[in-house]
Amino acid sequence: MSTVTPPPNLEEDPRVAAVFDDLRATRGPDFLNNLWRYLAFDPPLLDATWRDVKRVMASPSALDPKTKEMVYIAVSITNACSYCAHSHTAAARAQGMSDSEYADLLRVIALAGKTNQLANGLQLPVDPVFNKDA
Amino acid sequence: MSTVTPPPNLEEDPRVAAVFDDLRATRGPDFLNNLWRYLAFDPPLLDATWRDVKRVMASPSALDPKTKEMVYIAVSITNACSYCAHSHTAAARAQGMSDSEYADLLRVIALAGKTNQLANGLQLPVDPVFNKDA
Amino acid sequence: MSTVTPPPNLEEDPRVAAVFDDLRATRGPDFLNNLWRYLAFDPPLLDATWRDVKRVMASPSALDPKTKEMVYIAVSITNACSYCAHSHTAAARAQGMSDSEYADLLRVIALAGKTNQLANGLQLPVDPVFNKDA
Amino acid sequence: MSTVTPPPNLEEDPRVAAVFDDLRATRGPDFLNNLWRYLAFDPPLLDATWRDVKRVMASPSALDPKTKEMVYIAVSITNACSYCAHSHTAAARAQGMSDSEYADLLRVIALAGKTNQLANGLQLPVDPVFNKDA
Amino acid sequence: MSTVTPPPNLEEDPRVAAVFDDLRATRGPDFLNNLWRYLAFDPPLLDATWRDVKRVMASPSALDPKTKEMVYIAVSITNACSYCAHSHTAAARAQGMSDSEYADLLRVIALAGKTNQLANGLQLPVDPVFNKDA
Amino acid sequence: MSTVTPPPNLEEDPRVAAVFDDLRATRGPDFLNNLWRYLAFDPPLLDATWRDVKRVMASPSALDPKTKEMVYIAVSITNACSYCAHSHTAAARAQGMSDSEYADLLRVIALAGKTNQLANGLQLPVDPVFNKDA
Repeated sequence: MSTVTPPPNLEEDPRVAAVFDDLRATRGPDFLNNLWRYLAFDPPLLDATWRDVKRVMASPSALDPKTKEMVYIAVSITNACSYCAHSHTAAARAQGMSDSEYADLLRVIALAGKTNQLANGLQLPVDPVFNKDA
Repeated sequence: MSTVTPPPNLEEDPRVAAVFDDLRATRGPDFLNNLWRYLAFDPPLLDATWRDVKRVMASPSALDPKTKEMVYIAVSITNACSYCAHSHTAAARAQGMSDSEYADLLRVIALAGKTNQLANGLQLPVDPVFNKDA
Repeated sequence: MSTVTPPPNLEEDPRVAAVFDDLRATRGPDFLNNLWRYLAFDPPLLDATWRDVKRVMASPSALDPKTKEMVYIAVSITNACSYCAHSHTAAARAQGMSDSEYADLLRVIALAGKTNQLANGLQLPVDPVFNKDA
Repeated sequence: MSTVTPPPNLEEDPRVAAVFDDLRATRGPDFLNNLWRYLAFDPPLLDATWRDVKRVMASPSALDPKTKEMVYIAVSITNACSYCAHSHTAAARAQGMSDSEYADLLRVIALAGKTNQLANGLQLPVDPVFNKDA
Repeated sequence: MSTVTPPPNLEEDPRVAAVFDDLRATRGPDFLNNLWRYLAFDPPLLDATWRDVKRVMASPSALDPKTKEMVYIAVSITNACSYCAHSHTAAARAQGMSDSEYADLLRVIALAGKTNQLANGLQLPVDPVFNKDA
Repeated sequence: MSTVTPPPNLEEDPRVAAVFDDLRATRGPDFLNNLWRYLAFDPPLLDATWRDVKRVMASPSALDPKTKEMVYIAVSITNACSYCAHSHTAAARAQGMSDSEYADLLRVIALAGKTNQLANGLQLPVDPVFNKDA
């Protein structure tokens, strides 16, 4: 089920083919997953999304790829994005996340879910020591 | 402003004093922050919360302390927990997070917020290759 | 799967039949969808919900019906309501939303998901110029 | 700060005055709070909102008023609605919620925040025994 | 579908068997549900989660078990946790929640979802009368 | 309060100055707001964010600018982004949104918040008629 119909012969559109070629070259065939296939219903949206993902996730940066995928999982779970929890857990494993790292990640994600509720419940004033805004 | 009144002489209650002593010994005085002071309105809730936080965040585990704090930030931002975004950004900095790491973290958290919306909008079917459930 | 069992002969209850008749007359048969059939487990809840939806969505108002359905999609995606993303995307299409409008809608919804994370991460002070409260 | 300017002499508009009179009669003066004063920027929105709140919260129903306010707190915290966490915690106290009930409520709300993350992380299949949909 | 593979012979691990025995003794066999079976991929996470759930939900406290399960439902729906909405609705029914109580619960949860949006939209200032922080 | 310190002489960095010049030229001085000033703590993040916002919000596309800002408000409210609710309500007004359109927008956003809770509570099966995925 989806809210869109992906085009039948996806790569007949050269804009789609160009993105898919780059995706396969960058990530390997397992990650030409449904997100990309369904986004192809609108080639400019597909292209802009892949450029953004590639720039942030597939380029060298301050954080290593495994950490970035684990952060992605944390956001995806909290946003209740079922598809994203699946795809980014697979991506983190592809970057080397072990079962014990995944369990530890879940422990932190779950604990944060818990204390977020306490802080939002108590409506705590922010401690001045945490303020970086001079 | 808060929904509770913290007790006036917090540490006169030995249950509160015991938690605060352990907190200061484990984390240093900067992190005896308002979360703990206001939770003292119910000493058993304070005690159980600190035990949980200490077990997950202040004990050696598969992920290093800085990574755990960055994951905590990711969840806290996504849950719109203002207090938690402040306190865990401070905690991540205390664990060594640099400005460029923080910028990179925000890049990933923001990108995830974006693609979560796309996947939840398109209602994508999960690719069988992502399924770990045999 | 659901948390309730819809009654077997839904329209034997005259309270349910009255709502369903009005629904079909107002929206056509495609939108006598599962939301209404399952809400029939409690006829007063069904009736109050339909009255509210009809008043806001099926009455002339400042915004046109297509815009209102697109706003509904935006909220439903952000709340990760799978059923609602499906039903309101169908409703927006029934009101004339084209594929390119849907793609543009997703672009805005996704961008908002991204910058919401940045603003909640940075914990920005609100600019006085935005304040309407004299 | 707000996104709207409440009208200067609120009760000069008879539609506003009628709602405020009913609100004071039903709930007492403490709960003619800012929600109602700012909603007065659009009298029909004010009227419809109060009718809905009165019907659900101020009419006898299967759940008692204190339980209903505690459920309201649970939703408000999870939605990170700062204003609502404040106003409904006050309303629950006005209905008799004690400090120890509030602490217990927070314990459940926090635990749910935790296990929701685990279930959304693991993407658990729903057990057939939980399905009520025959 | 899940992001983990539960171990094939779950109870061969004595740490898993100990938790499952306690779970069955405390809750009965219907609630040895998938949450616990999949958490067994990491026995320490399983054990810590069950201890937390048991302490809060299965121990006598200020709120009765049915109220606690209804609050759990409220959080789970708001977090869009599909699995949790199913499992805690079943648990609340097991604690005696009737269909009319469930309908009333949904009425409050839905109303809160509505007014949370209004308050977060209007960005209301919190009334000083709600402040408990002296 | 913020989690970062904006640089003292923002526009001494030519990367920041280039973005600010383009922002002022595109949107006028009122929308060189704090989001941009604080993002300047990391010039590449500032630049990439502005490019994304400009491409989606300030370029001609299928939806008109006012509608896009109203959709942005809908997402921002649902994500409890206080800063974003303020800034995008101001932006929608700058695009011509009237008070009665804003009230109507809030009506839809609030109703969606309500029925999202009902659908996520009942865990409704999606009607086959809504499926676009052939």
